[in-house]
Amino acid sequence: MSSFNPVELILKKRDGKSLAADEIAAFIDGFMVGNVPDYQMSALLMACYFQGMNPAETAAFTQSYIDSGERMHFADSLLVADKHSTGGVGDKISLMLAPIAAALGLSVPMISGRGLGHTGGTLDKLEAIPGFKTQYDIAGIQKLVEQHGYALVGQSDTLVPADKRIYALRDVTATVECPGLITASIMSKKIAEGARHLVIDLKIGSGAFMPNLRRATELAESLKRTGESFGQKVRVVFTNMNSPLGHAVGNALETAEAIEYLKGNTLPDTQAITERLVARMLQSSGLFPQEADAIAAIREVVASGKALQKLEEIIIAQEGNPKVIEDYSLMGTTQYQQPVLAPASGYIHTIDSRAIGYALVRIKAGRMKMSDRLDYGAGTILTAKIGDPVQAGDTLGTVYANDAAEAPKVAAMIASAYGITELEKAPEELILGEL
Amino acid sequence: MSSFNPVELILKKRDGKSLAADEIAAFIDGFMVGNVPDYQMSALLMACYFQGMNPAETAAFTQSYIDSGERMHFADSLLVADKHSTGGVGDKISLMLAPIAAALGLSVPMISGRGLGHTGGTLDKLEAIPGFKTQYDIAGIQKLVEQHGYALVGQSDTLVPADKRIYALRDVTATVECPGLITASIMSKKIAEGARHLVIDLKIGSGAFMPNLRRATELAESLKRTGESFGQKVRVVFTNMNSPLGHAVGNALETAEAIEYLKGNTLPDTQAITERLVARMLQSSGLFPQEADAIAAIREVVASGKALQKLEEIIIAQEGNPKVIEDYSLMGTTQYQQPVLAPASGYIHTIDSRAIGYALVRIKAGRMKMSDRLDYGAGTILTAKIGDPVQAGDTLGTVYANDAAEAPKVAAMIASAYGITELEKAPEELILGEL
Repeated sequence: MSSFNPVELILKKRDGKSLAADEIAAFIDGFMVGNVPDYQMSALLMACYFQGMNPAETAAFTQSYIDSGERMHFADSLLVADKHSTGGVGDKISLMLAPIAAALGLSVPMISGRGLGHTGGTLDKLEAIPGFKTQYDIAGIQKLVEQHGYALVGQSDTLVPADKRIYALRDVTATVECPGLITASIMSKKIAEGARHLVIDLKIGSGAFMPNLRRATELAESLKRTGESFGQKVRVVFTNMNSPLGHAVGNALETAEAIEYLKGNTLPDTQAITERLVARMLQSSGLFPQEADAIAAIREVVASGKALQKLEEIIIAQEGNPKVIEDYSLMGTTQYQQPVLAPASGYIHTIDSRAIGYALVRIKAGRMKMSDRLDYGAGTILTAKIGDPVQAGDTLGTVYANDAAEAPKVAAMIASAYGITELEKAPEELILGEL
Repeated sequence: MSSFNPVELILKKRDGKSLAADEIAAFIDGFMVGNVPDYQMSALLMACYFQGMNPAETAAFTQSYIDSGERMHFADSLLVADKHSTGGVGDKISLMLAPIAAALGLSVPMISGRGLGHTGGTLDKLEAIPGFKTQYDIAGIQKLVEQHGYALVGQSDTLVPADKRIYALRDVTATVECPGLITASIMSKKIAEGARHLVIDLKIGSGAFMPNLRRATELAESLKRTGESFGQKVRVVFTNMNSPLGHAVGNALETAEAIEYLKGNTLPDTQAITERLVARMLQSSGLFPQEADAIAAIREVVASGKALQKLEEIIIAQEGNPKVIEDYSLMGTTQYQQPVLAPASGYIHTIDSRAIGYALVRIKAGRMKMSDRLDYGAGTILTAKIGDPVQAGDTLGTVYANDAAEAPKVAAMIASAYGITELEKAPEELILGEL
């Protein structure tokens, strides 16, 4: 690319021609060193949105993201595996999955993000634990994984920095929803962190970014193809995000629910999904080739307390206060409880998880901008599920808040997120398919 | 627009919905005050490129461009009329049209641009005249028009500044070719300068941006509709740009050819187009409702020398050296002449005007970047026209250059721009239609 001209490459993509790998590399490298300004990158991203990206272009974006930073390298003897979730409401699966997988012998460099809009983020849930440190450099993350079998950390600045900058730009230029760009963003991190086995929890439904199975399958194929072109084994599990996962939504409440799980107090939906995802990691790595053996092993490390012990181990290693395991109030308390009352009698047909997520932003259980401060203790416990019969005025759950004025509004907003009709409704499938 | 969110507007446009006038105004105003960064503007522009713009959106862009700066106001008694050309090779029509129109009593606030790529710019041709000043503020332009009947100037910084900034951004983000954005860019200037009658020379063919009549008609309808929605009378003339206009291509050479025209030494193609365009201005303004009367009047002011006198008057008013009218060498000389030789025998079927324009950039008769310096004297005189019979080795024209090494290369490139075959070929129509 001796005579690299950004405008010509934007034009080429705009007109529906494919960009070569060296053209994409020149554009992204140019962007990182400051030769390609933001406004040219955003024009290219919008052209990619409209014209789509073929597998070679997607792989080239992924490669350039990886090449923009450092990579993690683990010894060949380690079974490095990870999970990625596309994000949902009440999704605390990582908090159970990582210690269980580590207790069973996998090495899990789990790099998580923060919540934004209606979705929560694992990093915020972890930071509800006083003292818990999430920022480590590459060497620090590697050391945690080597010593403890896993790490629960945020993205290091030197890991795929091009993705970080381009993602921030996509977020403010309406260019997020492009399967090729989503693929490069997800897969570059998972490849650069050294995971050889990856399971992806691709969420579908009212609380997810993917509205239906068709669109989700398209993305899943792109993710799998791209990972495999980098020598990674990828399994995709499609899961239902038509209602919040488990009972708790809110940072401390979700971390407490995860700890309860590791104490053996599981809930049906989080158990089904956690077991399926960990089983696929164990099967992919060859540790437990048979699903039944994998599930039995998972249940054993929960029942024996080994998984909980792994969680305590990482809390201590990452400078958090391990007393939270016995005293959830250390993660945050709330002054006000407001019941969420069923607005009608009948059966719960729909739960607008997205509306619940946005309602909770009002009491700082979530954020609209990255700079917004969270109230870790705030959130809700919602026990009613799709298919449940209810009477008008029944308690569907409780809102926990420190804002007395907002609490009743949020409770009313959550109540109105429940679609209740007189017709009976069967519970929905939790796992919608696999790839 | 109390809660204006740029991302939401980009998303709306991206998803094929129409933007309301107040949304477009908020976006452009936000851009001008620095609340909307370049990268969001370029993303919106690319979304406009892909989704198209409806007449209301086009009018809203035009209005916002106008509102971003000052407007010119002329007394109602003045017949303010102007011409816009979409740009071509050898297009010196403005240099004849403006003094002729002014000599006949129209008021012409002619604001021109510079050349870029293969196309020339009237401003560069004027600046070949030593001392000729083209930068005036709004008040200065108004005063020239009021005192002399016209002005030959560049765009004032306070006239449609939003267009200026957004055009620069479109140029580097591959978002130029969008009919709605082209319309807003052209019409905002012509409305803000106070022209009540506008004739548009929409060029079609190998040397123009519009490849065919269908695409040109689409743009013409958009231009006309937008002008009329602002109370302006708009006529569009479609002209042939399959071969350079007149004989001269190059700044001083074209200005000299224009002066020759005003001395009565006209060439058939520039005469046909100049007369048609000025006639439409005269008819639209009501000064000469009948075309035949208008044409007769135009020929009279040329034959009598009144139009040439008007040119001399504006050269003096704009501080140029009026001696150029008698001594063209004052505008620039060249050391080397290189003949352009016919590469084959037969009839000239095609002339790649664009290739000629680009070839001339090598001897600085044109520029690739706005910062490139011009050699005003450099250029070419090409007398052979489409339909002419030629013998291999005949002289088609001459290249004038100060660069001895480039001159023969440019002559060879120009020669190869001629498509010569044995079949007879009729001359092409110069005027392809009107709207």
